[in-house]
Formats: sequence, C-alpha cells, structure tokens
Amino acid sequence: MGVCRNFIVLWTVALSLMVCVVCNNNTEDNDSLITNKKTLSECNLPTELKTEIASYSSTVEKIINAAVNGSFKGVTYRELSLFVDTFGSRISGSQNLENAIDYMINKSITDGLENVHGEDVQVPHWIRGFESATLVEPRNVSISILGLGNSVGTPPEGILAEVLVVKSFDDLQSKAAQAKGKIVVYNQEFVSYGSSAVYRGKGATEASRVGAVASLIRSITPFSLNTPHTGVQSYGENVTKIPTACITLEDAHFLQRLQDEGRTIKILLKMEAQTLPDTTSRNVVAEIEGTEHPEKIVIVSGHIDSWDVGNGAMDDGGGVFVSWGALALLKSLGLKAKRTVRAIFWTAEEFGFVGAYQYARDHANDTDNFVFVMESDIGTFNPVGLEYSGGTTGRCIVQEVMKLLASINATGVRQSPSVGSDIYMWTSKGVPGASLDTENDKYFWYHHSNADTLDVENPDSLDKNTALWASVAYVLADLSVDFPRELMDG
Amino acid sequence: MGVCRNFIVLWTVALSLMVCVVCNNNTEDNDSLITNKKTLSECNLPTELKTEIASYSSTVEKIINAAVNGSFKGVTYRELSLFVDTFGSRISGSQNLENAIDYMINKSITDGLENVHGEDVQVPHWIRGFESATLVEPRNVSISILGLGNSVGTPPEGILAEVLVVKSFDDLQSKAAQAKGKIVVYNQEFVSYGSSAVYRGKGATEASRVGAVASLIRSITPFSLNTPHTGVQSYGENVTKIPTACITLEDAHFLQRLQDEGRTIKILLKMEAQTLPDTTSRNVVAEIEGTEHPEKIVIVSGHIDSWDVGNGAMDDGGGVFVSWGALALLKSLGLKAKRTVRAIFWTAEEFGFVGAYQYARDHANDTDNFVFVMESDIGTFNPVGLEYSGGTTGRCIVQEVMKLLASINATGVRQSPSVGSDIYMWTSKGVPGASLDTENDKYFWYHHSNADTLDVENPDSLDKNTALWASVAYVLADLSVDFPRELMDG
Repeated sequence: MGVCRNFIVLWTVALSLMVCVVCNNNTEDNDSLITNKKTLSECNLPTELKTEIASYSSTVEKIINAAVNGSFKGVTYRELSLFVDTFGSRISGSQNLENAIDYMINKSITDGLENVHGEDVQVPHWIRGFESATLVEPRNVSISILGLGNSVGTPPEGILAEVLVVKSFDDLQSKAAQAKGKIVVYNQEFVSYGSSAVYRGKGATEASRVGAVASLIRSITPFSLNTPHTGVQSYGENVTKIPTACITLEDAHFLQRLQDEGRTIKILLKMEAQTLPDTTSRNVVAEIEGTEHPEKIVIVSGHIDSWDVGNGAMDDGGGVFVSWGALALLKSLGLKAKRTVRAIFWTAEEFGFVGAYQYARDHANDTDNFVFVMESDIGTFNPVGLEYSGGTTGRCIVQEVMKLLASINATGVRQSPSVGSDIYMWTSKGVPGASLDTENDKYFWYHHSNADTLDVENPDSLDKNTALWASVAYVLADLSVDFPRELMDG
Repeated sequence: MGVCRNFIVLWTVALSLMVCVVCNNNTEDNDSLITNKKTLSECNLPTELKTEIASYSSTVEKIINAAVNGSFKGVTYRELSLFVDTFGSRISGSQNLENAIDYMINKSITDGLENVHGEDVQVPHWIRGFESATLVEPRNVSISILGLGNSVGTPPEGILAEVLVVKSFDDLQSKAAQAKGKIVVYNQEFVSYGSSAVYRGKGATEASRVGAVASLIRSITPFSLNTPHTGVQSYGENVTKIPTACITLEDAHFLQRLQDEGRTIKILLKMEAQTLPDTTSRNVVAEIEGTEHPEKIVIVSGHIDSWDVGNGAMDDGGGVFVSWGALALLKSLGLKAKRTVRAIFWTAEEFGFVGAYQYARDHANDTDNFVFVMESDIGTFNPVGLEYSGGTTGRCIVQEVMKLLASINATGVRQSPSVGSDIYMWTSKGVPGASLDTENDKYFWYHHSNADTLDVENPDSLDKNTALWASVAYVLADLSVDFPRELMDG
C-alpha cells in the first residue's frame, strides 16, 4: 500500500481540511457556505408525496417516544458509556481499536441486527511514544504538547533550537531567512476550523521548506484551559520530515509575547513518535434488511477510531452509538423499511478517511444503490436537525420529513455543498446525504484532546439524536419513491 | 515555628475554606450570606458628607480617564504580562517567589512609590516533585493528577491499591469498613467553592481515619477540560499522613461509573511530594504617604505567591498588579491623599495566609490606624463594584463613593459578613474593608490549575479595576472624616 497510501493520505488530508470548513456551525465563514436559502414555501412537492411523508407521523412518534420516554430511554448513553469506559481511546493501528471493533460486531449480532460483519482495511499505525517540550530560555518551564499524527520523532537527545514565532504562512515567508535551524511556532488566529487547521495539516511541510528543524502549531480551538489538541498532518513531496506537535493557545501567546519583547527563545523538543507498518482493521457493517428493495441502502454512520488522547466519546463515539442506536431502536420496535438501513462504523477516519475510501473502492459498483448517506461526526449535542447535501427536490423531501421531528424541536435543515467527513466522497459525487446538526458550538473545545470524554455527552441529547437518526433513516428507506439523485444547487 | 506553624496552618486552612464560601459570586449559597439588603434610600448620611464625596467627581474622572483612555491605559496588563512572563509561577518557599518579590520591590522604588520595603515572613516550603497516577485495573490508562499542598509523598515504588469511590464524608462513613487499605476517591458534587473545598482541605485526614492509604479528590471546579486543580490541605491531629492529590472531574466521574458497574479498580499512585524546612519570604509594602495623617492607612492588596502550576496571572497576579497600579497611577497623577495609601503584596497566601498572619502579628499595635483594608483575590475580570464588609454608615459612604465610578459601570456594593482572603483577619474583627467585585463567574475554571495564565486577563478590565481601586483608596484616604468603624449589621 506504500505509494498508494502516501498519495491517498496526502490527498485525503487536504480533503479533510477542506471538508472540515463546513464542520463547524459556528464559524464566520459558515453562512457563506449555505448556498441554498430557499424556504419550504419554494418547494413544489406533489401533494401525494407530502401526504405520504406526513403519514409517517405516528411511526416517528413511536420511535421518538421509545427513545425519549420509553424502553430505549438512556440506552444510547449507557451503551456509549460502557464502550468508552471499557476501551478508552482507539487510534488507528492499535489493538484497542480492533478489540472495540470486535465488541461492536459481537454486540450488533447479539442485538439481532442483520448481516453484521467487518470488512478489512489496511490502516496506518502511528504511535506517539514519550514526548515533551521544555522552554529552556529565557526561563525553564514545561510546554504542554501533543505530537501530530504522522509526525516523525526527534533524535533521542531531542532537538534544542531557537524559536521563530510566525502568525501565518505569509508571515513565515517574510521571515524565511530567519527560519533556518529554528523551531517554527505557528501562532495563527482561530478563524474557523477549516481555515485554521491547514496550519496543522501542512505547517511542518512549510516550515521544513524554509529550513526549520521542527514546528509547533497552536492548537485548533477557540478556547483552552491549557489544552493541547492533536490531529493529522502530512509531509509534502520531497521535504525533509521534521517533528511537529501542537501547543496550547496559552503557550502560543506566551511565546509570541517573548518574541515581541525581543527575548531569545529556545526549546528542547523530544518526541519518540514513529510510523509502524500498516495493520489490518475493519469497517463494521450492520443492517436491518429492506423488505422490498434490500439492495437499496440508506446509510447511517460514524467512525469507530479516535485519537489516542481522551476517550473519543464525542469524536466519534457519539456518532457510532446514535447510528448503532438507530438500528437497535428500529429493531426493538420491529420496524423494517422497504429498503435496507445500514449502519457503518468507519475505521481510521482520523488518518484521512482510510476506512471510507476502502469501502468506496470495494463497493464502487453498489454506489447507485446508495439512496441516502448519513454520518454523525461533528458532535451529538442537543439536535437541531440535519445538514443536507443534495438537490432541491431532495431538500424539500428532507424538510417534510424533518417536520415529523417537531416534538423534539429538531426540524432544521441547513444546506451545504458538502456534509460529513467519511461520507463526503459520496455526497461530493452527487449521492444525497446529511450530517446530524446539533448545538455544537463547543465542539472544538474538546476535539482531539484529553477533554474528549463521556462528560461531553448528555443522555437526553443522545436519546433525541438516536430518535432523529432512526426516524430519518426509516422514513427515507420506506418511502414509495426513491430519494431523488439530482445535481446540487448553488 | 514548628508547632505554632502547624496550629496556624490547621486553623487557617479551616478559615480559608470558611472564608471562601463568600468568594464566589455565583454560588447558590451566596445570597444567604448577603446579610444587609438595605438600599441606598435607607442611608442617612449627612448632606455635607454626601456633598464632600460628590466633590471628588472630577478627581475620580481624572483617575478613570488616565487608566481607561490616557497615559496609564494598558499599563496594568503590560506590567502584569512582563511579570508573569518573566517569573511564571511563584510558590511559597521557592527562589522564584523571592526573585519576583525582589522585582516588585525594585520596581516600586523605581516607580517612585514611598517607604518601599519587604517584611520578613517564615513560609512553608512544600515541593511537588514527580507525580503520576495510573489506572491499572480494569484497564491501563494515565490519570491526570496534581498533588495537594502539604501532601506527603509515596514510597518510591508508589502505592498500588484498590479504589473506593465516595460521594461525601457521610458516604465515606457508611463505607468505612471497606476503606481500609484502599485509595479513597472523593467524587463530591461541586455546589460552591466553600462547601466543596472542604473535601480538598480535609479529605486525606478523613480517609486516613478509616484506614485508607491515599486519597484522590475531585477538583474543585464547575467545569473541566480534563483539568486538575491543586490547593492546600492539612492533616488533622494524630492521623497517619497519607498522600493526596486532586483528579479531574472527568476521571472522578469515570471512576464512579467503574465502581457503579461493579468493576474492581486499582490505581498506582506515585508522588515525590515533600515538605522542606521553612524559608524566609517577605510581604512587600509600598506607600503613597498621607499629607495630614500619614499614620492612618488605607490598604490595597493582593498576594504575590501562587501555586506552582500555571503562571498565577489570575491568582493573584491580577490582584497584585491592580494594587501596584492603583498606587503607580495616583503617583503619576500627583495625587496624595490626607491619609496614607499602602499597597501590600502578601506572601504565602496559598498555604494559609501565612504572610498576612505575620503582618497582623507584627502590626498588632497599628490596627487601630487601619482605616479601610482592601484585597483583590477573586479575579480581576470586568469590574462591577465592591464586596463590602462593615457597618451601615460605612456601607452608605462606600455606596456614595462608588457612584463616582458610574462612567465605568462599576457602582455596585454587595455586602458580606466577610471579604477577602488575607484581609479577613482584619475585617472579621471589625476593620471595615472590601474586595474587588468582578464578573468572575468563570474564576474556578482556572483557579489553581495550569490554565491560570495571562490569557485569563483582559487589558481593558485591568484598566478599569486599577481605576476603581485607585479611586476608592484615594477618596477614602482623603475624606475629611475617618471611615466609621462600626459593628457589622446582621
């Protein structure tokens, strides 16, 4: 997989940064990405179709009641809790991830889901090892770091070098002559995840190109309690691979002030990070098979891998468990739709949608049967609705379906040119799809950090998300007409 | 100082917990502590006095303008920044604290403040050393900890023991038979700082009394990004001293869930903490001497020591620098009051007001001349006014004075039976005094943690606090009548 993998990783890291521009509801550049602001009144769905969708009202209420007040109340949180407490973090390449995958396969079988299986994927195996950064001049103090995925390590004795702080890639270029032999620290503003995460993604490459010996990136978050956030990065072609890690907002500001005060700054960076040979992982698949068109598929999904810090309860334990919960809930209610509802728990998302890419290759001939693809990977906070990618008629259908969620106040439909992380490879090619849209304004406070724990999750919100996910999947899988695959507006 | 110190530490730790009940504006039990809810309309100050106070309007506006728009704009933040960037944390007993004290003495002299000097205090010298906690059963994962002040260390090989999680002291008593040989984990709710911090203060003692070998305390904070918070604790008489540290909210919840699930929990705790012989530190004193009654004193203060984590920018760099700033600002404007305005930067507050107690003993004969004592030690966020301790006539005077702060919207006067940390020993004996009252609802997010950095502080808020502090000190020091020393209401 060597060359192919490198190419795919490079491309997908770039893609992930692009995709993630739309991941945060609360970024300044978000509104501009909502290309279709037509309201429901502009929809001209056939009356029959609207009536048909409305006829699902009692079924959806049954789903909601079971999740919010009934037999499934608290189940999603309780199962997620048991999962993260048992396995903790689940980084690509780790045995822990494979144990967690075994668990979800066995659990889905036990729960009576259908066609449960894993599908093999070769995945990266990067390990962090010991790491530390120490400011040794102008005074001695420890700097909190988290090495970035795919980073190389330092020599055992570490790298001791002067620091050059820059605020942007342009700033780096203007100071290129000073960068040689230095540790470049990026103190870029947090504008939005997408626009800021590019510093994490290619900061090391750009620093290496001007002769830096390492790079430290301000964590991609709007808020910090001295919290470093990791994430993936990739080295460009023909650059010397230099070690790279993230630092906290506080330390980025501190180093900036020291530089502004004209002080000489030196840091000793030690990282044991290394990339081991690829390992075999699996995407997990479970279904409730369709009664009339089992070959036609509505997908709900999340990714089962996480970073190696925190517990991956939010990113993306929540996404996995509302997807598992949607199927388990439908199963418990005996609801089988005309089409198949398939849950997929992607592997190795964090290293560039590795599992999803493999799935796309393995199922290239099935894509026409993917009726609607959904992923939850931007938080399972209190739901507000869906972020939708697709054409106008489809949007009108989704809006009608979401009216059924009025009792949990989650009827919103935001349109975006792209949704999801793993599912982007389908939605970008015209397969209609959606992400779960929740009150995720604090998502990046926790993202890729030790703060990604079960404390982020809320039982009631998870119940509502499971109800929403199950309802949308069931209705779209059961409609008398296939969901329209139109060209996207905008 | 051995026996005496132990007694004082015990007593003052208890006191600090009691005092701190009123430190947080945002606790449920706060309202009940505001014993005097009389409004300004109930005041019957002589018209002459009200007129006299109002006549300071132009002087106070001059002070405010200098701080907010003029020559002193940004100075408090800039000086605080230089201070914390240069010295970082400043724990009692450390050379770094003494270097910081030297710096403030030299700075105050350079700034033209008067009678600048240090006054010796013997202070505790507790050091943290290396520390770690590892969950070894049911799975292997690191637990973030911060050892508590005065804690003993573990043997070099650590303490490996089963865990017993309790929710309260009552819960501990009900499970006392299970505690022997265990590590007791306190997962107490955060209700208010005062009511919760008692678990930090005496959790180890209570655990030791039922045979525990160590104790871990849930950090005293309402919010966490996997953030441990340290603080002082003391061992009761005749108990075996067991190692004790704080853990994060997230890990306390995690351990609780593991116990609730019936899993056996084991932790390996390693701490090198030890208490070295006392060292000599200093309270720093600087003045603007009174023109008519130099022996009569209005005090503004904060404490210069901090914990050994973070930078102590908030706790209590901000308090020190608004107090320094108040005098430097008055000096820069050539404002000398009839009475002396004295700034004190207390040492070793964090180990039980050690500097303040020494000062009280050394100046027992001067107490009658303490006209009004102020301290800022609960944050220098955007100011809302003062928290006041004293009688009704005094409150009416303070309310009149605070009207002069209308242009910075900081006219509030909240009455409390006690204010301050270091100054409580005077206000509790009837010396009228006040704490700075600010929008400090997030104070305990940062308190005693690595997140206590300059990022917590805001230049504009510091300017307003300096203006408020200088204005109140100047007016109260300059009034034609002494501030009344009445019995407190309520």
